[in-house]
Amino acid sequence: MDLREKSLKAHEGGKFTTGCKLPLENREDLSIAYTPGVAEPCKEINKDPELAYKYTSKANTIAVISDGTAVLGLGDIGPMAGLPVMEGKSALFKRFADIDSVPIVLDTKDPDEIVRTVEILAPTFGGINLEDISAPRCVDIERRLIKSLNIPVMHDDQHGTSIVVGAAVMNAARCTGKKLSDLTVVMSGTGAAGSNIARMLKRLGVKTIYASNKDGVVDIKNYDKYDFLIKELLDDGIIDTKPGHDNTLASLLKDANVFVGVSAPRLVTPEMVKTMKDPFVFAMANPTPEITYDEAIEGGAVIVGTGRSDYPNQINNLLAFPGIFRGALDAKATKITEGMKMAAAKALANLIDDKDLRPDYIIPSAFDERVVPAVAKAVADEAIKAGVIRK
Amino acid sequence: MDLREKSLKAHEGGKFTTGCKLPLENREDLSIAYTPGVAEPCKEINKDPELAYKYTSKANTIAVISDGTAVLGLGDIGPMAGLPVMEGKSALFKRFADIDSVPIVLDTKDPDEIVRTVEILAPTFGGINLEDISAPRCVDIERRLIKSLNIPVMHDDQHGTSIVVGAAVMNAARCTGKKLSDLTVVMSGTGAAGSNIARMLKRLGVKTIYASNKDGVVDIKNYDKYDFLIKELLDDGIIDTKPGHDNTLASLLKDANVFVGVSAPRLVTPEMVKTMKDPFVFAMANPTPEITYDEAIEGGAVIVGTGRSDYPNQINNLLAFPGIFRGALDAKATKITEGMKMAAAKALANLIDDKDLRPDYIIPSAFDERVVPAVAKAVADEAIKAGVIRK
Repeated sequence: MDLREKSLKAHEGGKFTTGCKLPLENREDLSIAYTPGVAEPCKEINKDPELAYKYTSKANTIAVISDGTAVLGLGDIGPMAGLPVMEGKSALFKRFADIDSVPIVLDTKDPDEIVRTVEILAPTFGGINLEDISAPRCVDIERRLIKSLNIPVMHDDQHGTSIVVGAAVMNAARCTGKKLSDLTVVMSGTGAAGSNIARMLKRLGVKTIYASNKDGVVDIKNYDKYDFLIKELLDDGIIDTKPGHDNTLASLLKDANVFVGVSAPRLVTPEMVKTMKDPFVFAMANPTPEITYDEAIEGGAVIVGTGRSDYPNQINNLLAFPGIFRGALDAKATKITEGMKMAAAKALANLIDDKDLRPDYIIPSAFDERVVPAVAKAVADEAIKAGVIRK
Repeated sequence: MDLREKSLKAHEGGKFTTGCKLPLENREDLSIAYTPGVAEPCKEINKDPELAYKYTSKANTIAVISDGTAVLGLGDIGPMAGLPVMEGKSALFKRFADIDSVPIVLDTKDPDEIVRTVEILAPTFGGINLEDISAPRCVDIERRLIKSLNIPVMHDDQHGTSIVVGAAVMNAARCTGKKLSDLTVVMSGTGAAGSNIARMLKRLGVKTIYASNKDGVVDIKNYDKYDFLIKELLDDGIIDTKPGHDNTLASLLKDANVFVGVSAPRLVTPEMVKTMKDPFVFAMANPTPEITYDEAIEGGAVIVGTGRSDYPNQINNLLAFPGIFRGALDAKATKITEGMKMAAAKALANLIDDKDLRPDYIIPSAFDERVVPAVAKAVADEAIKAGVIRK
């Protein structure tokens, strides 16, 4: 069987399952887990809502919520067709961070309805992982929910990749003795992931970031044409305009140090890489990257990362989201701040010692058992330090 | 430890847990359950939405949804304080009918918002069990959802008890050689459960039903004062007005054959039972019934049922809801009709053979392993017969 057949076969009956932690074998079991005994935790929580975290599964349960508008590379395939991804993501939360997780897909694309629905569901959950919601709506939706809810909310497509790219760029610099502030970065893609990667890299000290997207090079002189996401990147000084560019990605890459692609297949050639200086290439379009690992090496790249598991340095947001939510839940965090995401990136980078760091090993494997505990601890420590926790 | 301490201790950390049916131990596992393999079921469902029932957990997953306005006997304690009950109910679906089930509590009491939220969540689930929503709002909410969704929706508080009471009254009549059409029934309580019990008993052939509630005896001459639920019972000829009643429950019970209480503790005395004819007494106020088992016997009751597990003939909706949803899911039903509920009541009654039927054994135990399969089969058969199924 090929992967397609194997996957369809494996998905029969779905992946998600539920259970109960208490026995239900006889009348006494029922009198404890259900009536009349269940009235006792109800009464306690009614007196003190914080006790919901003690007497229900809320403290360790999150929802993985999508409207199905930007599923994998498949686009707007709708809620039911997106459900296998949400079930998979829920399973990863359980497997990698021991977080109970419920896949939920929404039969609406209206941002107001999405926000209101998640607000209405919030008492059930300890956190909300938004998933595969199209840009730039996803940014608005996430911001409004972060503001209105007192549980952690994160849209993984925006932040997961940026955290791992942040760690990868830090370690690429460390591995080659460069300073982040000396690097010129070129982004391809300025959507949900791209805009947050740019912000993460700027926060980590990168001085200069140029960007292009499907409409060409991002240039301040075209300000009025952009969506609010790109406007904000320009307003905040995150993206710079390269003098003398000719509206091609090639013209941005010349003399640059880092390529970061979250865009589309095969946009970068070995010849373009050859015009860069000591290039780091992170080409994360999936499943076909902006340039393959081998071609990037052929073009002289010093360090290469892709989204693929069959090459070194896989930039996989599985390195981030389980530990982020584990840490946020452990710390009783009320939100996931930029500081917490930065702490996660640093913890991820620091998992590789100087002695182990090599161009083909700048980022740990998703199966490295140290990853989730290290990320979780860094995130929890930062939440507590910043005071964004429940009393 | 007393029950209170035992229950609080057992509830620490909550009851609800989630899992994944597929292994996630290595990169190949991930490539099947998550990217890139997960794209295959997504694409199939995008082509044919019905395949969501094949390639996701939708077909066997329901939501247990409450706004926390009528939790147990505790009343409007809010969503988080109601969550232990929803977790317990979810656990019962899993334990008794092997249905995966997600407890969800809603941070709104607005019927329009509740309806819209459930509609938006619907693609995720194969069915919706509404729970502990106050009357008469619950009736309106359930009706609107049954109309707008193509998955089974049932508010258990309305229908669970009515199905079991229907079975109990059928078997009480069979056990004593009475005809249902000869019985005069007196209801105490005309809310979510009471109104549906009255309808069920009428459908089963009972000719005369009188009713009282906290405002006194239901009388057609007070029509304008009633909420829409009672108005409908009068409009539809479900509840009759007893000539010459003096606005007391006692005056209704005189010469009646059956008492059905879903109201409040200690409303009926042995003396009142003595005025009835060959009385069947079903006193289901919880945890303290309208009259205790022993007092009902003392008053001359021929058959007595209560909500309590420590006396014979427990009227427990656990006898109904797992099999109802199991049958509805098995049959690919798009709704749960009155016919399906009636079929469930009859199947439940018929589980006890003539030779086993005794006044203290008119209803099977919730732990009787025949219950769920028998109810499920009857419900599924009726759904198919009525054609309320997906193609």
